[in-house]
Amino acid sequence: MFQFDFKKRVRYAETDKMGYLYYGHYAKLYEIGRVETMRSIGIQYKCLEDEERIMLPVLSLNARYIAPAYYDELLTIRSILDELPDKMITFRHKILNEKEELINTAEVKLFFVNMDTGKRISLPTNLKEKFSLKF
Amino acid sequence: MFQFDFKKRVRYAETDKMGYLYYGHYAKLYEIGRVETMRSIGIQYKCLEDEERIMLPVLSLNARYIAPAYYDELLTIRSILDELPDKMITFRHKILNEKEELINTAEVKLFFVNMDTGKRISLPTNLKEKFSLKF
Amino acid sequence: MFQFDFKKRVRYAETDKMGYLYYGHYAKLYEIGRVETMRSIGIQYKCLEDEERIMLPVLSLNARYIAPAYYDELLTIRSILDELPDKMITFRHKILNEKEELINTAEVKLFFVNMDTGKRISLPTNLKEKFSLKF
Amino acid sequence: MFQFDFKKRVRYAETDKMGYLYYGHYAKLYEIGRVETMRSIGIQYKCLEDEERIMLPVLSLNARYIAPAYYDELLTIRSILDELPDKMITFRHKILNEKEELINTAEVKLFFVNMDTGKRISLPTNLKEKFSLKF
Repeated sequence: MFQFDFKKRVRYAETDKMGYLYYGHYAKLYEIGRVETMRSIGIQYKCLEDEERIMLPVLSLNARYIAPAYYDELLTIRSILDELPDKMITFRHKILNEKEELINTAEVKLFFVNMDTGKRISLPTNLKEKFSLKF
Repeated sequence: MFQFDFKKRVRYAETDKMGYLYYGHYAKLYEIGRVETMRSIGIQYKCLEDEERIMLPVLSLNARYIAPAYYDELLTIRSILDELPDKMITFRHKILNEKEELINTAEVKLFFVNMDTGKRISLPTNLKEKFSLKF
Repeated sequence: MFQFDFKKRVRYAETDKMGYLYYGHYAKLYEIGRVETMRSIGIQYKCLEDEERIMLPVLSLNARYIAPAYYDELLTIRSILDELPDKMITFRHKILNEKEELINTAEVKLFFVNMDTGKRISLPTNLKEKFSLKF
Repeated sequence: MFQFDFKKRVRYAETDKMGYLYYGHYAKLYEIGRVETMRSIGIQYKCLEDEERIMLPVLSLNARYIAPAYYDELLTIRSILDELPDKMITFRHKILNEKEELINTAEVKLFFVNMDTGKRISLPTNLKEKFSLKF
């Protein structure tokens, strides 16, 4: 298991008339979580697309909303990898507010696509090694 | 069972650099689907908040991404209610592209909150009746 | 002069904690306005990119906020072309609420780029003709 | 004159199919710029609303797009105050990319509203003093 924390502040643009972080914006938190988690182990998602010609479309998203997030709160996006990615990669996320209360959990599954062939692939060995150093 | 279709065009603002409708924007499609479904049976969500003082926070979101949606496509948001809402309301959604292909499915659970007490409630009888006419 | 109206409802996703349509989302209204105006004269912006290989980046945006737009309001996006596009195209927009009150005005300037060369171009004659039929 | 810099990374959610930061998302950059500028002089915008009961709706936005911003770039949002706020506050913004190139400029005017009366007010003296320390 490997986990990584990243902070993100709730912006006015992301609130709704309930005064909460809009439920649809959590998907962006998960995006930030997984991209920063990969950056922390030496994989820049931008290079994955531009140099390795691999992209990661989302296959499924399961989110549970426990409590609201409010304007200007500095949230913690906790991203957890339970197993080494192979044919797909599964990120679990926990969102914590400033009081360290768990307000949201999610699981996001993504797969790997060769951008030149459009075909689905397994994670290449050189990248798998970067992940395995953390397990 | 009751189902309702509503059309929504993919805007440039909603695409991402893959050229797809960004995965986080589907939550807005589900919002549009449930609000327009309620409007179709005589319930305006705005009045629910302003007059009945009831709001519907989201409890959970489960989405499965089958194929991408592209810029300018006129999508069909199909919203399905399998049972009468009571302590919560569960919307199932199917997103279809212009070729009538199923590209996304989701299940969104919401609950009812009395905005004055902040307490969770069951759907009031007068509103339940509006739903029951469709079943 | 040529003008075109298009309706757009304010969604929960687009409101902020003031209860207003967030000021940054008006840019999307202008996008919808100009795309639907072009569609009304037989130019699909998607085909402009995909077939003619021309894209229209935004050069400038000037917006004036007169009154707020609220959740669930069905806004009118009025798009006005004062002159035939040539080296650039200038859209003026007026946003009206359900009471036909003017709540926002804007001017958006865009230019034409050949997507294969990356060079700035004038609007090709075949497209200019479609605009000129309206003047 | 007083100026403040804040960094913001371009997220996938914010790109469009051109591969650029969508033109409408710059408004959020300006929001972040002004809120963080105020925080740097001891004014938390959240408290302004919650405690002082003052909100700052946007009056006008003028933006000029010079060059695109790309996915994953760490942008600098430079916010500049040329004069002390009184009946309104005017922020000028400059957006710089990682190469320190100027890619966007903007001017955003906001005014002060007493949230209890709904009336427009001048900036209260206690807050004006916090700004004046920087001039």
